[in-house]
Amino acid sequence: MIPGTDKPKCFCGIFGVFGSAESSMWTYYGLHALQHRGQEASGIVSRYVDSDQKTHLQIIKGEGLVSEVFDEFIKENNLLEGNAAIGHNRYSTTGSSNSRKNIQPFLVNYHNGSIAVAHNGNLTNESKLRTELINEGAIFQTTSDTEVILHLIARSKKGDQIDAVIDALNQIEGAFSLLLLTEDKLIAARDPYGFRPLCLGKKDGAYVVASETCALDIISATFVRDIEPGEVLIINNESVKTGHPKSIKLQNTQEYKKHCIFEYIYFSRPDSFIFGHSVDKVRRRLGKLLARNHPVTDPDGDKVVVISVPDSSNTAALGYASELQKMDIPAKFELGLLRSHYIGRTFIQPGQENRDMKVKIKFNVVKGIIENKTVVVVDDSIVRGTTSKKLISLIREAKPKSIHLRISSPPITHPCYYGMDFPSKNELIAHQCGEDIERINRYIGSDTLEYLSIENILESAREIEKENFCTACFSGVYPTTVDFNFKKDAHEI
Amino acid sequence: MIPGTDKPKCFCGIFGVFGSAESSMWTYYGLHALQHRGQEASGIVSRYVDSDQKTHLQIIKGEGLVSEVFDEFIKENNLLEGNAAIGHNRYSTTGSSNSRKNIQPFLVNYHNGSIAVAHNGNLTNESKLRTELINEGAIFQTTSDTEVILHLIARSKKGDQIDAVIDALNQIEGAFSLLLLTEDKLIAARDPYGFRPLCLGKKDGAYVVASETCALDIISATFVRDIEPGEVLIINNESVKTGHPKSIKLQNTQEYKKHCIFEYIYFSRPDSFIFGHSVDKVRRRLGKLLARNHPVTDPDGDKVVVISVPDSSNTAALGYASELQKMDIPAKFELGLLRSHYIGRTFIQPGQENRDMKVKIKFNVVKGIIENKTVVVVDDSIVRGTTSKKLISLIREAKPKSIHLRISSPPITHPCYYGMDFPSKNELIAHQCGEDIERINRYIGSDTLEYLSIENILESAREIEKENFCTACFSGVYPTTVDFNFKKDAHEI
Amino acid sequence: MIPGTDKPKCFCGIFGVFGSAESSMWTYYGLHALQHRGQEASGIVSRYVDSDQKTHLQIIKGEGLVSEVFDEFIKENNLLEGNAAIGHNRYSTTGSSNSRKNIQPFLVNYHNGSIAVAHNGNLTNESKLRTELINEGAIFQTTSDTEVILHLIARSKKGDQIDAVIDALNQIEGAFSLLLLTEDKLIAARDPYGFRPLCLGKKDGAYVVASETCALDIISATFVRDIEPGEVLIINNESVKTGHPKSIKLQNTQEYKKHCIFEYIYFSRPDSFIFGHSVDKVRRRLGKLLARNHPVTDPDGDKVVVISVPDSSNTAALGYASELQKMDIPAKFELGLLRSHYIGRTFIQPGQENRDMKVKIKFNVVKGIIENKTVVVVDDSIVRGTTSKKLISLIREAKPKSIHLRISSPPITHPCYYGMDFPSKNELIAHQCGEDIERINRYIGSDTLEYLSIENILESAREIEKENFCTACFSGVYPTTVDFNFKKDAHEI
Amino acid sequence: MIPGTDKPKCFCGIFGVFGSAESSMWTYYGLHALQHRGQEASGIVSRYVDSDQKTHLQIIKGEGLVSEVFDEFIKENNLLEGNAAIGHNRYSTTGSSNSRKNIQPFLVNYHNGSIAVAHNGNLTNESKLRTELINEGAIFQTTSDTEVILHLIARSKKGDQIDAVIDALNQIEGAFSLLLLTEDKLIAARDPYGFRPLCLGKKDGAYVVASETCALDIISATFVRDIEPGEVLIINNESVKTGHPKSIKLQNTQEYKKHCIFEYIYFSRPDSFIFGHSVDKVRRRLGKLLARNHPVTDPDGDKVVVISVPDSSNTAALGYASELQKMDIPAKFELGLLRSHYIGRTFIQPGQENRDMKVKIKFNVVKGIIENKTVVVVDDSIVRGTTSKKLISLIREAKPKSIHLRISSPPITHPCYYGMDFPSKNELIAHQCGEDIERINRYIGSDTLEYLSIENILESAREIEKENFCTACFSGVYPTTVDFNFKKDAHEI
Repeated sequence: MIPGTDKPKCFCGIFGVFGSAESSMWTYYGLHALQHRGQEASGIVSRYVDSDQKTHLQIIKGEGLVSEVFDEFIKENNLLEGNAAIGHNRYSTTGSSNSRKNIQPFLVNYHNGSIAVAHNGNLTNESKLRTELINEGAIFQTTSDTEVILHLIARSKKGDQIDAVIDALNQIEGAFSLLLLTEDKLIAARDPYGFRPLCLGKKDGAYVVASETCALDIISATFVRDIEPGEVLIINNESVKTGHPKSIKLQNTQEYKKHCIFEYIYFSRPDSFIFGHSVDKVRRRLGKLLARNHPVTDPDGDKVVVISVPDSSNTAALGYASELQKMDIPAKFELGLLRSHYIGRTFIQPGQENRDMKVKIKFNVVKGIIENKTVVVVDDSIVRGTTSKKLISLIREAKPKSIHLRISSPPITHPCYYGMDFPSKNELIAHQCGEDIERINRYIGSDTLEYLSIENILESAREIEKENFCTACFSGVYPTTVDFNFKKDAHEI
Repeated sequence: MIPGTDKPKCFCGIFGVFGSAESSMWTYYGLHALQHRGQEASGIVSRYVDSDQKTHLQIIKGEGLVSEVFDEFIKENNLLEGNAAIGHNRYSTTGSSNSRKNIQPFLVNYHNGSIAVAHNGNLTNESKLRTELINEGAIFQTTSDTEVILHLIARSKKGDQIDAVIDALNQIEGAFSLLLLTEDKLIAARDPYGFRPLCLGKKDGAYVVASETCALDIISATFVRDIEPGEVLIINNESVKTGHPKSIKLQNTQEYKKHCIFEYIYFSRPDSFIFGHSVDKVRRRLGKLLARNHPVTDPDGDKVVVISVPDSSNTAALGYASELQKMDIPAKFELGLLRSHYIGRTFIQPGQENRDMKVKIKFNVVKGIIENKTVVVVDDSIVRGTTSKKLISLIREAKPKSIHLRISSPPITHPCYYGMDFPSKNELIAHQCGEDIERINRYIGSDTLEYLSIENILESAREIEKENFCTACFSGVYPTTVDFNFKKDAHEI
Repeated sequence: MIPGTDKPKCFCGIFGVFGSAESSMWTYYGLHALQHRGQEASGIVSRYVDSDQKTHLQIIKGEGLVSEVFDEFIKENNLLEGNAAIGHNRYSTTGSSNSRKNIQPFLVNYHNGSIAVAHNGNLTNESKLRTELINEGAIFQTTSDTEVILHLIARSKKGDQIDAVIDALNQIEGAFSLLLLTEDKLIAARDPYGFRPLCLGKKDGAYVVASETCALDIISATFVRDIEPGEVLIINNESVKTGHPKSIKLQNTQEYKKHCIFEYIYFSRPDSFIFGHSVDKVRRRLGKLLARNHPVTDPDGDKVVVISVPDSSNTAALGYASELQKMDIPAKFELGLLRSHYIGRTFIQPGQENRDMKVKIKFNVVKGIIENKTVVVVDDSIVRGTTSKKLISLIREAKPKSIHLRISSPPITHPCYYGMDFPSKNELIAHQCGEDIERINRYIGSDTLEYLSIENILESAREIEKENFCTACFSGVYPTTVDFNFKKDAHEI
Repeated sequence: MIPGTDKPKCFCGIFGVFGSAESSMWTYYGLHALQHRGQEASGIVSRYVDSDQKTHLQIIKGEGLVSEVFDEFIKENNLLEGNAAIGHNRYSTTGSSNSRKNIQPFLVNYHNGSIAVAHNGNLTNESKLRTELINEGAIFQTTSDTEVILHLIARSKKGDQIDAVIDALNQIEGAFSLLLLTEDKLIAARDPYGFRPLCLGKKDGAYVVASETCALDIISATFVRDIEPGEVLIINNESVKTGHPKSIKLQNTQEYKKHCIFEYIYFSRPDSFIFGHSVDKVRRRLGKLLARNHPVTDPDGDKVVVISVPDSSNTAALGYASELQKMDIPAKFELGLLRSHYIGRTFIQPGQENRDMKVKIKFNVVKGIIENKTVVVVDDSIVRGTTSKKLISLIREAKPKSIHLRISSPPITHPCYYGMDFPSKNELIAHQCGEDIERINRYIGSDTLEYLSIENILESAREIEKENFCTACFSGVYPTTVDFNFKKDAHEI
């Protein structure tokens, strides 16, 4: 969980370049643009050829934001050289003494030389594969499922490196958007269901791969296309020359995709295009649907004030307000909650006060906007409900007529096995309250509370086929086999 | 200047408490709420009485944000004890090796014991007073005008401490909102023109004084009233008991006040009430006036897209958009520019690129909102114009039909001597371009550029009398005598 | 007290240069050489003339060792420019929230421009002077007696700057070795009794002043002479040209000097010459006297093993061993106690063990040297006795026949008012035990314990006149009037 | 190389405990005592059994001194729990971006659960083994030879864990003193030649293993015996109960041992017993032999002054001086060079001076001791010769009659493949000068220079058989097969 918020976490963002002398710098900027996908650790591996024509992979990685990890190297003009690079932003479990090992990219040496990997997603058959590998004599140095992929490649019977990679990827199940950097190529792969986004771009002849298009934009790269679900794309000097990277399909490629709907709801940046659509537009449509299904009117005919929980719900709130207007309900979008820029990731509260000052320091309520108004608060999701409860109470201090909480997604009731991090099922407020929305409403303290239903949400995906989305966290219907006994961090080293 | 932006800086924010065992903690929270008024240094002085009934003033201060300065003390449960405290957030000139000395509050010892001071504003007769004091044998340890006040108090012939303070305050000219903490009282004072805001609140019987009401709100204190221009308020144990702090008027109290209009335009937090009005409401009215005076329509009858430069212009942009609608011009407010939360105060750009990546990392353009649209960008002010130029160029990449920059204040042409920090006159774009708005427009690269005029702006102050505002930075008309030869940081020690 | 030891602390070391473009760098090295005189804070002020021929004094100071304070500036090639500089190493009271203010040099502005001061010593009439100054309207920003000197200079009625300095110095009493840097000169002064050392050197035409000659040596400056007790030396461009700095005598200059004998016993570096003699030689002579007065023999005719408590007692221990040999007592100097280089100033002991691991980590006993031997441990002084007790117990674990502790100074029974820091009288083991050496011996756990007497110690000063030393900490006989009610850190701000 | 010195580096120190609830704390202290064997990184792995009787291995490791790595955990009372632990001090190649991975202990997961390893030494057949393992599908995450050992254990066909460890150790060649911590035992092993020391101790029923006895002493453990060359000792709960750990011999155990003679000359702490002897005594005997073979007399019959390069040569210098006396040559040991305590591992030199100030800051010459004397400087070894040259030049400034450098070891001419780090052969002064001592003397600038010969040095090993020492760095005679093409850090990842 992001400290001080009540949002699920995405495991990571990945970025890669092949064919430019500025590879590391582009990767650095790309990771900046993907910072929202992981804030706790970051790393870059670059491939460079020394004056003796020997190829090396070199790495910088560390805990913290992109700027915290790389700034000392940039200051000393010491960012990694080379004409190819991959990078990774990570959400790491803080506090674990082993966590540092799990920072990606991983860089290892095996019979085909050095190889590095950056992975966004989660393998669902990791436990089985890990056990098999260990029984064959493998040693594991991390608790990450990503290490499994490297072992599978190293142990593949296929002689050719690409064949070995395909062999390994055909064995893994679950969600993976993956970058592999070897001594002579960049390999980008996406699982057969396409759970997580991954896109291809070009700049100055070089190929660029990124979790989201916003990372192409920051370096002014041109968007080419999405990496397809089940596609393995091999980019090497030849590809750069011809402009035709080799594309291979994984065995298990599916007819229906299973894109993570939460990427639209919360994870991806509004200025990105993913799964073929503008995040901003989809998110706005969710807001509109929410208005259409759960409108609010003022008892006295005054304008309803629609505010968002900044910044992630801004777009949905704008959509909600404009749809109300279209429905001829007097309403206006307002900035009634302001988010402080100064509070960092840590906040230490002095004294023994039981008021939670953190929410109060983070969010400022503009009383003049709220007072004596019918207020709609639009948020994108509720996980534990604790922050929502505090926010509603904070807004209540500004004396509105009433507060109506509208959530632009369905109640979250099930864990995700494809790369989102939720608290345990028992901590989910929707699970706790037996999916009884009125009970949740009473807990949170809003006057009314409404969610979008799964049907609503897929309706918003009108143009894109509904079958192509994973909604497991709302429905419990998992598109792949899942080992339910499997705890993500079970295999402590 | 705030790094990476093009805004003037306010010199500081102040906060004080008398009469609560939680004084330091409240001050700590108050400074959090006033963080926007100064981000480079922070300090708290508390007054505590030890077990021998001896009174001490003790201090913590340092460079950095409020949390950076105080967190180590809070962690060790070591925030200052005592039943009174004053605090200060400061914008300090970075890089100066002397800067640390200038962090406030100042705490000194003189014939009436210990005294601490926290000051927001700027004295216009400092140079003269400093020279006189030095000639009388005073030694100066800082380059701050605030030290002058302490010397005047210490050298006053008046026997009584309050009389001496009044004597000192009657000698200083310019802008001052001031807190003094002595061994037995808290003194709050505001200059006769009332340039900077200062308000009085109460909580649990204790008195609270703050630059803005948002700092009362964070600790749930009740707003009592503004400290009046020219008022000196003395709060001691007696005041707490009776509920009647003693109030004294300074000699030079004016009929017309000279409130800083920039507090409404940019400095103060939207959720504050200052000079008797809601900042949010005034700021929105500026946006509306801007629309009324400088509307934009789409040549094809499409909706005009109104975006703000987040976050300081959000309110004005909302006002602009709603006013256009009222004028039946098709328009909508959109979040077309997003501000990154992850970029801190420092950003080190790698390589020799001449593109300014900082603006690109800080602001994300949502292409889908901008593309092929007539776009109005609302900003609150332009100082050097460099950031505006970069922003317009960034927005231009998203291919709008046209970009119309609208500024919710007049062109800045003159320096401020009352507590705002601008670059030198020659760096002001409006001065450089000889106040020729079309030249500024060409420099910045917008299709059209319009400002509010001084008349417009005072019009928005309809309800509050126009004579009560200082507009010197726009007009060059200074309400007090100013020593124009005086350079703010001239007296290096 | 130095953490983990049981030694008094010297208040500081000072260093100054006039006439070289390398002034700051020399001062930096000089402070390195004087690091033993103060490890908790350090500062340098330089005087430089800018391109407009304007003179500035600029400052860097901070907490920590010399390298900790200056390394970041050196890295960025940013040490202070200028052709004159003064520096100061300080022992600051840790933990005090006001301590940072007390770091020297102090740099202030007064009617004659900027002036900086660095002071080694302690004023005995500070309290009286401070009260007078405060009553005249002075404000005090530190708790340091050094600030008094600056006020006296600023308030002097004498028009000429040098006259004003002399006027001020004639009013202060106690111990002071002092450097003043003004906009056009360096002033070095020593109190009439000459409590603390101060010497003059030259290098490349420039003048150098330092607490000890070891600081001249590090920059390969030539030793010229000591600054005389009661002398004020004025060094300016003229002096550099003519080679004749102006020398003025203070009114109160004494016939007999009162050099601090502890400078020889412990403070000064063995490679320094102070008060006209080699510290190493005097210290060795103390060891010899100790042997002559308190020899130890082995009951079985074996060689007595003489070890030191490294590193401060090494020289005395060498002297002790060689004197025994001269007396035909079988003896040898050995390195039976080794001091760890790796333990820094802080050591945090895990767990609740009551063994003091710090002494064990700091000192390693070489068992093979000690076992079954008659061991003499030579130390230079005992303050609280706690560390000695632990050391004896540690040595005892190596199974010697017997341990004989020999101290190359008399029992410390009285506080110092001239610049040494002791714990309170009640914590002094010699005071606690009523100066009964046998009781101290029992407390510490040695088999025998002997000190040098005051007579012994002055005997070692044969060649230099005995009357010229202050022995107040051993005898309670103070050479000047002392305000015994005065607590060094009484005037908290 | 240790910065600022000219000494070879030992790769590391190791420490382990089985059977005490204080295992981690003892290991922490043990690592403190072994700090001289590696100062750049440190780590501890402990084994603890949780409340569900599940066993875990947990780890803390990081860059820096022992105190720097562990202090934050100790402060928070958070040192690793458990009843067994191993620790490691490391000399890591600074600057390498991969270096962090190489910090030991390594902790991995394999088919027998978790296992951790701490290794002092260097494998000579690593390259061959690594290639074989890689070809079998192993992935390597570090460049350390220690990782090879873990792979060999994981891939052994032996079912039993101990058998698999023996199987692995029988395959590795070179120098290894090794600790393995598994989920139920501590395994200590030493290579068949016994290059590096390793000893066994007991405390409170628990077993303790350490590189040197000084690490037993610090926790007051009793020395039991050395782990034998070629011995593998298994310590588990059973061993603790019975007091009889199981001991197994490796296949290749040798008749003659090959103890590293440099452990006596420089590496080990003087208060340790290693290879059956007191380091202090052997080192003193080297000094005596040096005097006997290369005495110095004063031309005028004055006493020769014998000084050491502190602290590592102190003992040899004492031996040298006492032997001269025994030979009736007038001589005395003096402390003519003092070592500063304040200079840390880094020193940044300001300006462009070509004088090396570092040596001057680190070593203080006591002029009074040196001046006009015939001086013998005793040092334990010369590697590059650069520091010796600077030291001799520094001593020369104190105007001795003459300076005679005496080295208590032979000229270093060959690289070590058993755990010492030298610069490349071409940087060795003895190699550069073709082993012509007179040329070295001229380079360094001493009046005369003499070394001990290999014969001399083995003579000092009279009681211990000469055949039992490795002298490869002096003679080029390597006791094992060495792959000379092998570069220690060749396999960059």
